[in-house]
Amino acid sequence: MGVPILQPESKVSFGRLKAFIQEALTRLGLPVPDAAVVAALMAEADLQGSDGHGVSRLPQYARRIKAGGFNVRPNIHLVREQAGTALLNGDNGMGHLVMKRAAEIAIEKARATGIAWVSSQFSNHAGPASLYATMPLAHDMIGLYFAVGNANHLPPWGGLDMLLSTNPIAAAIPAGDEKPIVLDMATTVAAYGKVKTKALRGETMPEGWMIDREGKPLTDPKRADEGMLLPLGGMEAGYKGYGLAMIIGLLAGTLGGAAMGKDVIDFNHDDGSVTNTGQAIAAINIAAFGDVDVFKASVDALIRDFRNSRRMPGVERISVPGERSQETRAARTRDGIPIAPALMRGLDQVADELGIVKLA
Amino acid sequence: MGVPILQPESKVSFGRLKAFIQEALTRLGLPVPDAAVVAALMAEADLQGSDGHGVSRLPQYARRIKAGGFNVRPNIHLVREQAGTALLNGDNGMGHLVMKRAAEIAIEKARATGIAWVSSQFSNHAGPASLYATMPLAHDMIGLYFAVGNANHLPPWGGLDMLLSTNPIAAAIPAGDEKPIVLDMATTVAAYGKVKTKALRGETMPEGWMIDREGKPLTDPKRADEGMLLPLGGMEAGYKGYGLAMIIGLLAGTLGGAAMGKDVIDFNHDDGSVTNTGQAIAAINIAAFGDVDVFKASVDALIRDFRNSRRMPGVERISVPGERSQETRAARTRDGIPIAPALMRGLDQVADELGIVKLA
Repeated sequence: MGVPILQPESKVSFGRLKAFIQEALTRLGLPVPDAAVVAALMAEADLQGSDGHGVSRLPQYARRIKAGGFNVRPNIHLVREQAGTALLNGDNGMGHLVMKRAAEIAIEKARATGIAWVSSQFSNHAGPASLYATMPLAHDMIGLYFAVGNANHLPPWGGLDMLLSTNPIAAAIPAGDEKPIVLDMATTVAAYGKVKTKALRGETMPEGWMIDREGKPLTDPKRADEGMLLPLGGMEAGYKGYGLAMIIGLLAGTLGGAAMGKDVIDFNHDDGSVTNTGQAIAAINIAAFGDVDVFKASVDALIRDFRNSRRMPGVERISVPGERSQETRAARTRDGIPIAPALMRGLDQVADELGIVKLA
Repeated sequence: MGVPILQPESKVSFGRLKAFIQEALTRLGLPVPDAAVVAALMAEADLQGSDGHGVSRLPQYARRIKAGGFNVRPNIHLVREQAGTALLNGDNGMGHLVMKRAAEIAIEKARATGIAWVSSQFSNHAGPASLYATMPLAHDMIGLYFAVGNANHLPPWGGLDMLLSTNPIAAAIPAGDEKPIVLDMATTVAAYGKVKTKALRGETMPEGWMIDREGKPLTDPKRADEGMLLPLGGMEAGYKGYGLAMIIGLLAGTLGGAAMGKDVIDFNHDDGSVTNTGQAIAAINIAAFGDVDVFKASVDALIRDFRNSRRMPGVERISVPGERSQETRAARTRDGIPIAPALMRGLDQVADELGIVKLA
């Protein structure tokens, strides 16, 4: 103690982490079943290595609930519906609840029509995109997910006004014997959650993640507010990442009547306002296009061809999207989920405030 | 003459270009209505500035037809169909015919279900992705388009085996008073069509477009066969562009039973084999999610906020995706479409071989 920099990382089990989050959310006013759903998804984020989107968000969620920024007893309801589409109003509930429901509706509809798309409005931050994109996998469907991020960290290409978030895209494709292919990426060089994680760990960022308002590299994550994230493509082809971020914002936000552009609330600095967050999930039923087993065998063969490719000098292995997360999940299931000292101090404070047993 | 480097660029009208292509394709055996459809789409590509995907492909298409690599009288037919999906077999016809039909089916289905997705198999190169993504716009729908490119130019991240193409994505979003937002991008730093254009013009490529097999920058477009395109994100975050290219290949190729990975035929070096090219188009009916006029007004407001953003030093204007193409279209409608000398020589040769009047 006394010298926090030397304090070792704690490790906790998935079960313990889920129970801790569930207890906290219940104390904060969520009905137990809702608290259980959110806790499972948040702990799942940590299990798979999405450290910027799991329990690290709990202190902020707690602040937001206390400030009235989340509705802890939302009436999540359909606003419009067609055979292959739905618009879901989250009634300002936690995004995890809204998007789990959205995924369930999309899966159900895609069974009948082949493809379905569900957009949310008045939703909130829902954790890593891959949580929802992977939900259709168990039904032999492909999942696609798009979200408007909860704070604007980049301007239009060439501009200075913060009008875009890191708007992520996720896609999950089922395989047969192999693990599914799961892409989950911010449309910036680095996700803002990674910047937060660097700050929590007291590390600096590599050049190329952020620039300041004069266009110079910014590497201190504690100065993140003074700068902007670079869109995917960086200084050279960042207009492509900018275009992707804008399209995803239109699909996930504007289409469903949710916030986009200057209407996006910076939830890192505003605990009380309704964010009107928008997300969208699509489910594509593989059986609508052909034999499911044939498809899965093709995906398996593709994964193996990629994995077995000749490698560039110095490269030890070739991965497909999702593989690292699956390995992290296996390792953390076995060894526990690491909690950085700075985060643990924040969680201890949440526990004290709510009068619950500390995480570890 | 005599000094080709000084030969001026010719300019031709859209009407003249379309008529020339149509005449050539008719002589090559396409029925007149099909030749007219392909010619209009190819000339449209040139009009909007997609120089790598318009008439510059005609010499190659002509070779391919003569070699039996395209079916000039295809029976384009539905293989499977659900309320919101279809799988279209192109019977190895020209991709323009297949994907125009696919777009029409997607639009029709989305009117009933809110969203539709049509995948192609046994299709072929269809020109720029934006041609098809923009087709739903006139029906107050959003268009999304995904394609497997017709030659593999990049390995998996860290690898050396060419298993991926530049697999493009396009998205078109209708606006109100403003022009629609149209993103059309290869998932590499540069599209291979741009490399071909550089070669035709005798120019070198900037560093960062391609690397050779040792990972060193490759800037001579005539040596393109010796190197690989860098995925979007470049050396720093190229694993994201790699992930996008793979997912798009799975959606556009594998899902519809079309070629992907090592099954992709390099149509730059093989005129005779059936490519089994796959593409996919989705149409999303805006009315399924809310009032169309409200949506369009939101898009207009967003475009204006972006355009009017404060700018970084040295930046003269801020564009939204599609704006440059729309300006090119206006300029070329007024002034004509420029045809580079090297391309004109190739087109003259096509005209001679087919016994038709030269383009200009």
